[in-house]
Amino acid sequence: MKLYTYWRSQAAYRVRIALSLKGLETELIALDILKGEQFADEYRRINPQHAVPTLVDGENAPILQSLAILEYLEERYPEPSLLPQDLRARAYVRGLALMLIADSHPFVTPRVRNYLEHNLKIDAAARARWMQHWMIEGLTAFETQLARAALAGQCCLGNAPTLADLCLVAHVTTCKIFPRFDFAPYPIAVRIFDHCMTLKSFSSTTPSLQADAPVAASK
Amino acid sequence: MKLYTYWRSQAAYRVRIALSLKGLETELIALDILKGEQFADEYRRINPQHAVPTLVDGENAPILQSLAILEYLEERYPEPSLLPQDLRARAYVRGLALMLIADSHPFVTPRVRNYLEHNLKIDAAARARWMQHWMIEGLTAFETQLARAALAGQCCLGNAPTLADLCLVAHVTTCKIFPRFDFAPYPIAVRIFDHCMTLKSFSSTTPSLQADAPVAASK
Repeated sequence: MKLYTYWRSQAAYRVRIALSLKGLETELIALDILKGEQFADEYRRINPQHAVPTLVDGENAPILQSLAILEYLEERYPEPSLLPQDLRARAYVRGLALMLIADSHPFVTPRVRNYLEHNLKIDAAARARWMQHWMIEGLTAFETQLARAALAGQCCLGNAPTLADLCLVAHVTTCKIFPRFDFAPYPIAVRIFDHCMTLKSFSSTTPSLQADAPVAASK
Repeated sequence: MKLYTYWRSQAAYRVRIALSLKGLETELIALDILKGEQFADEYRRINPQHAVPTLVDGENAPILQSLAILEYLEERYPEPSLLPQDLRARAYVRGLALMLIADSHPFVTPRVRNYLEHNLKIDAAARARWMQHWMIEGLTAFETQLARAALAGQCCLGNAPTLADLCLVAHVTTCKIFPRFDFAPYPIAVRIFDHCMTLKSFSSTTPSLQADAPVAASK
């Protein structure tokens, strides 16, 4: 199994956690997204969106999109399960995951930051506000949903990690890049994040510990 | 079954198609997103993201996020299936769907257009270019993937609609809002769109025919 990854990518981090939880040995192939390595012809042939992550399992076609990869891993390697059995609980977990995957994370990716800077001439301070705005929107909705549903234990649904936890941990990790990000409004999410980070599959796959992370990031 | 919807929402259209394909009688509750009806307290209690669609199936908790709804419908009402059986084919279909759900559609939603206009003071022409840019990015990646995989028949995978087709049709329908959108680079996607629109579940649920659409939209 091979995963094309980038140390700071939220989407790649989600998948690294899942691979670790499921105990799947994976070769990580790091692309330097900020240097544009994803635009090299070789990678374009693998992923027409020239984005990470991409999973290659054996000789078959590469699998694109983090959630498609997570659902594939769940179906192909079902133990331990990262989705509950009950259909409504599965919908709840997927709904939480998608709040971040579809409605928050896309706005902070390098391609969007580049468009804001180069096409719309938005300055660095306003770009930082843009990023924080969408991170806050996602986390606020997530926390509200956790509080209403009251299904959280150590994790978003009970005490075992699901796809929602992978997404939450990756999201909070990105929020922590902002020096003064205020986590006070998100007590449930923070409690779950703190618990998950005591688990080796979450802590050992974190961006700052990746081989392609700059040395400063691990301090 | 109740679906909170908005006539022009791509995400709501995806779900309307699935409900129709599966023959599920559904009460459509339209919210006027441009007037801000999604921010009313009653709807905030149903959907903390105050976004459409939301599905309510019986007495259970509302289901948020179009893809979570689609996966729920697939698991709860499996016939006709909107995902293939083969695991790799399922990953392929989900990857296509997510190219549009996660990496294209989020950028053209009202909340983003509002942020561009009011927070970043981007003028109408630049906002229109922004929208077209992300619609083109998504459709280009989708077409490239269709061409490489060479698995399309009348639909994205063979001849039966899957989640990828629902997303593609909703995406192309939004592209058609732009008067001079150039579809020439997307022959496979356009052929699939044209085929799907011969099917009642796609054509009868289209935005312009919704009860909440302005009269002009149906012309």
